[in-house]
Amino acid sequence: MDFTDTAKNAKEASLKIAGLNTEIKNEALSAIADAIETHKTEIFTANKLDLENAQLLVEEGKLAKSTFNRLKLDENKMRDMIQGVRDIANLDDPVGKILLKRELDKDLILEKVSCPIGVLGIIFEARPDVISQISSLAIKSSNAVILKGGKESINTNKKIMEIMNNALKQIEGFPQDVVQQVFTHDDISQMLKCDEYINLIIPRGGNKLVQYIKDNTNIPVLGHASGICHIFVDKDADIDDAIRIVVDAKTQYPSACNAVETLLIHKDFNKKDELLAALQLEEIKLELNPDDWATEYGDRILSVKIVDNIEQAIAHINKYGSGHTDSIITNDLNNAERFMNEVDSAGVYHNASTRFADGFRYGFGAEVGISTNKTHARGPVGLEGLTIYKYKLHGKGQIVDDYAKGTKQFHHRDI
Amino acid sequence: MDFTDTAKNAKEASLKIAGLNTEIKNEALSAIADAIETHKTEIFTANKLDLENAQLLVEEGKLAKSTFNRLKLDENKMRDMIQGVRDIANLDDPVGKILLKRELDKDLILEKVSCPIGVLGIIFEARPDVISQISSLAIKSSNAVILKGGKESINTNKKIMEIMNNALKQIEGFPQDVVQQVFTHDDISQMLKCDEYINLIIPRGGNKLVQYIKDNTNIPVLGHASGICHIFVDKDADIDDAIRIVVDAKTQYPSACNAVETLLIHKDFNKKDELLAALQLEEIKLELNPDDWATEYGDRILSVKIVDNIEQAIAHINKYGSGHTDSIITNDLNNAERFMNEVDSAGVYHNASTRFADGFRYGFGAEVGISTNKTHARGPVGLEGLTIYKYKLHGKGQIVDDYAKGTKQFHHRDI
Repeated sequence: MDFTDTAKNAKEASLKIAGLNTEIKNEALSAIADAIETHKTEIFTANKLDLENAQLLVEEGKLAKSTFNRLKLDENKMRDMIQGVRDIANLDDPVGKILLKRELDKDLILEKVSCPIGVLGIIFEARPDVISQISSLAIKSSNAVILKGGKESINTNKKIMEIMNNALKQIEGFPQDVVQQVFTHDDISQMLKCDEYINLIIPRGGNKLVQYIKDNTNIPVLGHASGICHIFVDKDADIDDAIRIVVDAKTQYPSACNAVETLLIHKDFNKKDELLAALQLEEIKLELNPDDWATEYGDRILSVKIVDNIEQAIAHINKYGSGHTDSIITNDLNNAERFMNEVDSAGVYHNASTRFADGFRYGFGAEVGISTNKTHARGPVGLEGLTIYKYKLHGKGQIVDDYAKGTKQFHHRDI
Repeated sequence: MDFTDTAKNAKEASLKIAGLNTEIKNEALSAIADAIETHKTEIFTANKLDLENAQLLVEEGKLAKSTFNRLKLDENKMRDMIQGVRDIANLDDPVGKILLKRELDKDLILEKVSCPIGVLGIIFEARPDVISQISSLAIKSSNAVILKGGKESINTNKKIMEIMNNALKQIEGFPQDVVQQVFTHDDISQMLKCDEYINLIIPRGGNKLVQYIKDNTNIPVLGHASGICHIFVDKDADIDDAIRIVVDAKTQYPSACNAVETLLIHKDFNKKDELLAALQLEEIKLELNPDDWATEYGDRILSVKIVDNIEQAIAHINKYGSGHTDSIITNDLNNAERFMNEVDSAGVYHNASTRFADGFRYGFGAEVGISTNKTHARGPVGLEGLTIYKYKLHGKGQIVDDYAKGTKQFHHRDI
């Protein structure tokens, strides 16, 4: 099918799913979880085929071992995948919330009501579990979705999509084409140009993919290209806090986007040698004069810089950071407050590990992704980030001319 | 100055104004209003020069008379301009609002706090009063702003900017370069590419300008290219309501973006002849078979279509509308609800004129513009639309590893 037809169908579907009640949406999610459970052997078979093909590529040096690992579904990942769908069914419906209710004048009531965005375009790499997760988030928030997965997982992706759509067909009143998949690189190019039908693009993958997408579309993109997170150890830091937090932020999951990449230390912090020695004991490699202060190592490597004062630390972060998550370790509350106000990042922390930047840890229940955008949604994005709002005005025949002439007056009373 | 330098200075300024308290910002706005008042003769003199140049262009047929009129400042517009700045000083500060406060665990407190977006790029046409209005909105919301006005008003724009910046220089602690102006077409091209420093573009002008900007940048754009608003007169409409509302929506200010362009009438509405006759009596020209259902007349002209049912009306609006504002006239509450849920527009009205779609009428105090976006801000946008949020996490040395291992558990309690 031509991409434009897929996109048109998605738009049609989005208008239909916008009006579905919570019960039908949850029924659909439950059916998806059940169907994946029932047909998991078929998914494993499809995945085995992808893994065989990928194994050859790994042997030829054409595919990274880490990509191979992300591609692989096992019983644990399958269980998490199914549970993930059920968890989303249990979340509050983000659609239809009254965000504002205001009487503009007698019998003229304005409501601001949350509603879906429309059509989401998802571009992701090797992880096939993204399909059921993002499709479920889209359904719960009443959006239609077009998914483009990595070619390495094509058999797994097709099978999961087939199972999901067969399950959705059984749900009475659930529109078709809410969840669709496309396959070619040309589909990506067309998706990025398709601002007539696609309202938001969410890339799930490495820096290069995300940067490519951000640079090649004027459709809003939700995500982050890189995660250059900093920890600033202030003069008045507690040495135990500093060691524990930096070690956690660097080593707990080094390839995560919220892992720390640069450590800034106040020149008058009198235990800096102790701190650096402790980090080396944890097998963290320290780069004292890196060529580039914006390197995302994704490994047990840490850039280190001694700064003269907090101003310098803040300026460094605002210059080289990616606006993701940055933390100050200090017992000076004024400095903590200043850091948190002046560092222009989605997450600004005091005496805590940057690794807390995560939708589940924030209590959002499920995460669409982490955004470094300055509009719409920033930081870990939950279901709410897949909604916008509309204004409903309930009148009894009112016209503007009466207010322009002064015959009537607005009184703007929130109710 | 090179545009990149202007943009860098704006970014620097944005980081400084982000931390200013409400008092200083209001002092700055008050100083701007006073300075414009004091120096208004100079502004009139500059405006006279622009008008003389524009008059020649009008005579040569190179400039529309309507543009000339928008360009012209008189005592009334000047008074409104000054009052507009004072009104913004009186609005609530949109920055620093606690949107969420949650205890993730003991002594681990998450706050979601509203903050400025950063640097705004404003591209506007002939109206010089936009400068003080948008600059004031930017200051109140702690954003820096770069303005590019129409060349017809260059002398007026320069004078107003000079007066504003002289006033801002007198305010102790107010950073420089918060409000800057650029002048050439090349500056626009550079602004649209400058996603490193500019976070949001707001075009204020005609359809062509806005569409050009939307098509040529990957920076988020806040605005609307066109306003194709509809009124659907249902079978059960009250004839008096229908006449009064359609006349108001078409004639109260025909060139407004929220004026109605297309009237849809249910085929079984038995007073349709009376309705159409009444509209013609008000000198509204009816187009019963227009070539294009998406024409924004901006004049006393109205496309008219008879539809079989409400489904057809909704489908027509979702196909040809611009997602701006659409209204149903009916006494059938079920149809009203259905229309308001299924029409995918920023404003969906029942028994009210589309002309109510306006920030002042909604009680937002001041309007940045009207957005037909599906992300960030939709409909009339007030000061809140110039803000985003950051997450502040206040810890006491917590690390993620304790939660990953299960030594500690999140309890996620809103406080």
